[in-house]
Amino acid sequence: MTHSIESPILASNPKLYSFFPLFYMAWADAVLLPSEISAIESYIGKQSWLSKEESDFLRSFLNPKNPPSPQELKSWKRKINETSVEADDKLAAIGEKLSALKGSDLDENLKSSLKEIEAMMGIVSDESAFNLRAKERKTITQQLESKRSFDVQKMTQVLDGDNKAIIDKVKKVLADPQFNYLDTDNLSEYREQVFKWCQLLADQGFGSMAFPKEFGGEGDMKKYFAIMETLSYHDLSTVIKFGVQFGLWGMSVFFLGTEKHHKKYIKDIGSLKLPGCFAMTETGHGSNVKGVETTATYQHSSKSFVIHTPHNRAGKEYIGNAAVHGQMATVFAKLIIDDVDYGVNAFIVPLRNTDGKTEKGVTIEDCGRKMGLNGVDNGKIWFDQVNIPFENMLDRYASVDANGQFQSPITSDNRRFFTMLGTLVGGRIGIPRSGLSATKSGLTIAIRHGDKRKQFGPESGSEVPILNYRTHQRRLMPLLSNAYASHFALQYVTERFLNRKEEEMQEIEAMAAGLKAWSTWNTTHTLQECREACGGKGYLSENRIDRLKNDTDVYTTFEGDNTVLMQLVAKGRLSEFKKEFSDINFFGMMNYVAEKAKIGFTEMNPLIIRNTDEAHLLDAEFHLSAFRYREKDILTSAAKRFKKHLDAGMDSFDAFNQTQYHMVNVGHAYVERLILEQFLEGISKVEDQQCKDALTKLCQLFALSQIEKNKGWYLEHDYMTGSKTKAIRKMVNQLCWEVRQDAVALVDAFNIPDNCLSALIAVTK
Amino acid sequence: MTHSIESPILASNPKLYSFFPLFYMAWADAVLLPSEISAIESYIGKQSWLSKEESDFLRSFLNPKNPPSPQELKSWKRKINETSVEADDKLAAIGEKLSALKGSDLDENLKSSLKEIEAMMGIVSDESAFNLRAKERKTITQQLESKRSFDVQKMTQVLDGDNKAIIDKVKKVLADPQFNYLDTDNLSEYREQVFKWCQLLADQGFGSMAFPKEFGGEGDMKKYFAIMETLSYHDLSTVIKFGVQFGLWGMSVFFLGTEKHHKKYIKDIGSLKLPGCFAMTETGHGSNVKGVETTATYQHSSKSFVIHTPHNRAGKEYIGNAAVHGQMATVFAKLIIDDVDYGVNAFIVPLRNTDGKTEKGVTIEDCGRKMGLNGVDNGKIWFDQVNIPFENMLDRYASVDANGQFQSPITSDNRRFFTMLGTLVGGRIGIPRSGLSATKSGLTIAIRHGDKRKQFGPESGSEVPILNYRTHQRRLMPLLSNAYASHFALQYVTERFLNRKEEEMQEIEAMAAGLKAWSTWNTTHTLQECREACGGKGYLSENRIDRLKNDTDVYTTFEGDNTVLMQLVAKGRLSEFKKEFSDINFFGMMNYVAEKAKIGFTEMNPLIIRNTDEAHLLDAEFHLSAFRYREKDILTSAAKRFKKHLDAGMDSFDAFNQTQYHMVNVGHAYVERLILEQFLEGISKVEDQQCKDALTKLCQLFALSQIEKNKGWYLEHDYMTGSKTKAIRKMVNQLCWEVRQDAVALVDAFNIPDNCLSALIAVTK
Repeated sequence: MTHSIESPILASNPKLYSFFPLFYMAWADAVLLPSEISAIESYIGKQSWLSKEESDFLRSFLNPKNPPSPQELKSWKRKINETSVEADDKLAAIGEKLSALKGSDLDENLKSSLKEIEAMMGIVSDESAFNLRAKERKTITQQLESKRSFDVQKMTQVLDGDNKAIIDKVKKVLADPQFNYLDTDNLSEYREQVFKWCQLLADQGFGSMAFPKEFGGEGDMKKYFAIMETLSYHDLSTVIKFGVQFGLWGMSVFFLGTEKHHKKYIKDIGSLKLPGCFAMTETGHGSNVKGVETTATYQHSSKSFVIHTPHNRAGKEYIGNAAVHGQMATVFAKLIIDDVDYGVNAFIVPLRNTDGKTEKGVTIEDCGRKMGLNGVDNGKIWFDQVNIPFENMLDRYASVDANGQFQSPITSDNRRFFTMLGTLVGGRIGIPRSGLSATKSGLTIAIRHGDKRKQFGPESGSEVPILNYRTHQRRLMPLLSNAYASHFALQYVTERFLNRKEEEMQEIEAMAAGLKAWSTWNTTHTLQECREACGGKGYLSENRIDRLKNDTDVYTTFEGDNTVLMQLVAKGRLSEFKKEFSDINFFGMMNYVAEKAKIGFTEMNPLIIRNTDEAHLLDAEFHLSAFRYREKDILTSAAKRFKKHLDAGMDSFDAFNQTQYHMVNVGHAYVERLILEQFLEGISKVEDQQCKDALTKLCQLFALSQIEKNKGWYLEHDYMTGSKTKAIRKMVNQLCWEVRQDAVALVDAFNIPDNCLSALIAVTK
Repeated sequence: MTHSIESPILASNPKLYSFFPLFYMAWADAVLLPSEISAIESYIGKQSWLSKEESDFLRSFLNPKNPPSPQELKSWKRKINETSVEADDKLAAIGEKLSALKGSDLDENLKSSLKEIEAMMGIVSDESAFNLRAKERKTITQQLESKRSFDVQKMTQVLDGDNKAIIDKVKKVLADPQFNYLDTDNLSEYREQVFKWCQLLADQGFGSMAFPKEFGGEGDMKKYFAIMETLSYHDLSTVIKFGVQFGLWGMSVFFLGTEKHHKKYIKDIGSLKLPGCFAMTETGHGSNVKGVETTATYQHSSKSFVIHTPHNRAGKEYIGNAAVHGQMATVFAKLIIDDVDYGVNAFIVPLRNTDGKTEKGVTIEDCGRKMGLNGVDNGKIWFDQVNIPFENMLDRYASVDANGQFQSPITSDNRRFFTMLGTLVGGRIGIPRSGLSATKSGLTIAIRHGDKRKQFGPESGSEVPILNYRTHQRRLMPLLSNAYASHFALQYVTERFLNRKEEEMQEIEAMAAGLKAWSTWNTTHTLQECREACGGKGYLSENRIDRLKNDTDVYTTFEGDNTVLMQLVAKGRLSEFKKEFSDINFFGMMNYVAEKAKIGFTEMNPLIIRNTDEAHLLDAEFHLSAFRYREKDILTSAAKRFKKHLDAGMDSFDAFNQTQYHMVNVGHAYVERLILEQFLEGISKVEDQQCKDALTKLCQLFALSQIEKNKGWYLEHDYMTGSKTKAIRKMVNQLCWEVRQDAVALVDAFNIPDNCLSALIAVTK
């Protein structure tokens, strides 16, 4: 039996046409259940105006065993499309129009039957009706477009600040064809290229930038950081090799050595004439670096030191520059004088002569391939009774006197070692800043792609940029806000570090540790999302996300494992307690929280807890209060827990482990508060109103998406009601939608040169 | 001034010794603040028994400008260690013992002063006291050890089930030296090796396993899945190349073609004599595959089809086997007959002759390097008016008849296409199962390493396996439970697929889509955590996590982008509504939820909401209720939101986008419930009690860590109070601690051969 929309029976009773939109829907998309078929049949049965033949005709359209042909279905659609369907017509209304077109009006009984059938079909019917409505649907989702609500160059200026000149200079150097990416996966070819790039950068004076003028530099640590950050838009192996040479090797000699070392080495280090290593980590001791087992035994007779690796697992590992290029190393070893262990100290140890031949007693092994950073030649080093001269001890914090006696202005071995490490905290600032550049590269690629890439769309409508989809916005917009937020926070910690006073060091070290952990985790997470957000294109090496992700993946590990760093932050925060700790009690705790967080108990006022006004939700004061409250409460309760275990006689080591989960949260809450404060502080200094407005929106998104992430905590602590956290979720969705419109401009403002970005899906030309 | 513990003044008044533990603490670890120094000085001032000289002597120990020498500090420690310090001694008590050792008891006044000073120092003092106590501290954290609470082989048997024989066979084949990993990063060398491995596997009959006996196979799809899963312990490029050849290329010919195709091709496909491709995705259409633009135009005159790529972005992209080895491809193209578009259909198109020369009109480009899977030769393909014979149309679901008319038993073009795709849903099962094997490899590496790797420990105590740390357990134990949970769920969906009835397909497709998304995201996340949990060792290629991560990273993208799949699941779930949808209201909704979830309102009983009893928290019924409630509530409210937008006149496309965030959550909640149910179901069938107990604990951890992850939702919906979610957090910590002890046994039960695992830090020999 045919199901032609040209059947003579239809011409004789055009009212029958009114069923065709429903039939079309049933066969085109839906799956009709037996119960639905019989319900529709019963509606047909109720139509007293139908002849037996007409009823049978209509019923025949519902027989699953006798479907219309593909051609017939197409002809129904063509016929339906002849009617002038309005935007809010439903199937029943379309059916009515189709009948009218054929010259027949429907009575109320039939109209209401059609509506009832449609209601029964529910959502499926609604969707189908939309598909039939217009040739070209214009939806809000399709129409959302990128705009530029601010001057991109002004925003770049806000980000670059007074680093603009050096940033521009580095970009100009990187634009030289010599810096074209190398398409090789041959390890030694890549390593040699990276070495060459480092040499070219050193020739520009970038390597010695932080060293004093007398040693060929400019004594400008601030510029050094900006150089590292800008180089990180290019090859990341080069950045790390650069950092190993000039940062770790150079700065260890500079900060741990004294004038004699500076005069002898710094100039050659800055020019890369003397490539070297920073040999601290051992196979057996990474995070717990205080426990390294390499020894430096003082020989009274020859006034020299013997560097020795006592067993295989005490070999130095992952040492950058070691496998191929390093000629010397700063080696961290336990100083032994007359069988007394004076803790970990630093020594300059020659590894290779200028011809590349390893020195006697030194064994070096290549670490081989890594997940990323394959342009860096990491290696393992073992020492077999290697004799080094007296003056090779880096003696700023400890020395051996003429009588072979240990001397140090710092009494405790531990504290001396951590003071030495403290001078090297710059690495914990350089790494997250490098990671941030990679994050910006990833976001630039994924957001530009998301703006251009179209996929899906309303039936019979054009396809939609994927960045117009809510889930895509949810994936990328909060991460864009994180990138801007951490930019300002990292600028701040850099300034604090550059202008540090001795008594601020503990605070600065905590900030650097916390920001390093938060920021590098954010890098890993962001690049993962960017990879997925670009789909198959994100998986192809031609779009570079793979390399950005793999190269930075170890940022969460080196310069301190992130989880360990967060605990370090927590320990620092706990020392705030001291006295409070001893006589802690509930009211004391509440007072402490209230006082330190500068939050009155009014904050816990039920009206505020429930406040879902838009103005309140977007208010920076609300965000700050929430972040600060959380930080203080988590700190206080972690301390309380810890104390409770101690009071119950638990070993302090166990007590710390017992509360470790909370301690890590202490670190997170601290860093999040710090970042929000510095984002707000940074925005307050922006003069251009349009930039300020765009940044303010980003900051609101940052704050609310963090609060949303922690909503379980806020609800557990009755700081917010469920109605408020739901309102926040809605507001985050709304902000994502708004920020999306500026998103391309916001990544353009990172101003990453096309030659560095080098992702086919994202370059501007 | 010296600070010798041998000063004559001490001999004359041994009570002075009582201050040395405090002094040691002050100089060894703490930083004394000026206020603390003056407080201690005032306590000293209160000691009337001290002479002026003695007071000055003690006060001199507090002068920051006159520190003791490193040698002096060491001598204090030695002296203190001469006393017999008890486990719960604090600094004051140790001081008392030191005095006593020197022959002097303290009076009460002095004792209480020391205690007050110590209290003032708070936490720092506690920690220091621990450090002074014993030569070797024995903490709970140190003593936690791996155990085997069950028979590992029996657990392996539980996991392998009736696949044991084929799993063992595949492992045996992989143990052949021919399958030794290739240490190369040369793309073509690697690709040739992978092709060779595929050939060796085909020679074993693995490739044709799923095809009928008459075509050289065993007709055993179940074994085919087990082969894919087991191969995934080895090189993942090989698995994907294997899947492209035998799964995508072979199954598309088998399921979309008819007898003539089977006879002509299947045997040669199964033996790898005829390497081929599955050419569906185009540059312009990936997720929205229905929109592919390649055309297959029927020529009445010659009764043939012309395959054509209308523009550059309509080229096929990411096509496995295309760049080098493929000789033919199943090409998906819009069938055009007499200018009418009959939707996407499938055609066999020759690409290369057996000499590797591309056919006329075919252009192939290499996709080049990718993040991973570099042993697979992905390529792009364009067709320029390529003529193929009539019989090359895969005509199971649609054909062209003798009159050049389109014929199909399925009326709707869309539904026909999705029916065709439905036959290929096996890929959505194979991929997550392959990903699960990689997940198991990663966990085996990270957990064995965490058990052996020691780092940090109590001062003067031995170092501790990092898996004994709470944060490390928190990172890995819930992921171990996820792996076991998804193992059972993926077994279940495989069985459902193998024994499917036509009317179950929609349900099975939704399960496969949801599990694919959840499980592959879990793979990516797990391998990321494993990388970080192994620190620098995790970054070295010698430990293989980099490759596992990079190879499987695209699993979240191919066989359907995960975010899109979760929406697909949601759409399927929404169709449950239909009628309910039309007259939705609050009470109807609640009834619906209550009924469908089989949850009475007693569940919302305040006593249960607050119940924090251990037995309740560990009860599977509680877990199931919570998962089911969440699933149904999220589904209902997503539907309600969607309907609200439609009722307000919003275009359905916009309404879906508006609720997209919730739709994705619908998918997650659905899958999580499914996994929990199947984990429990799987456990119920285990006979060995010890295995059952271990699995039950894992299942509790799975359930509670999922609930914890979603605690914001449960709190927002008043399904739990804050006290209950806090109790759950504590229970998760506790379960992590317990599961950690079985963790090594639990990964050993995965029974991954050392030669496949090939991670230096984790192989058992």
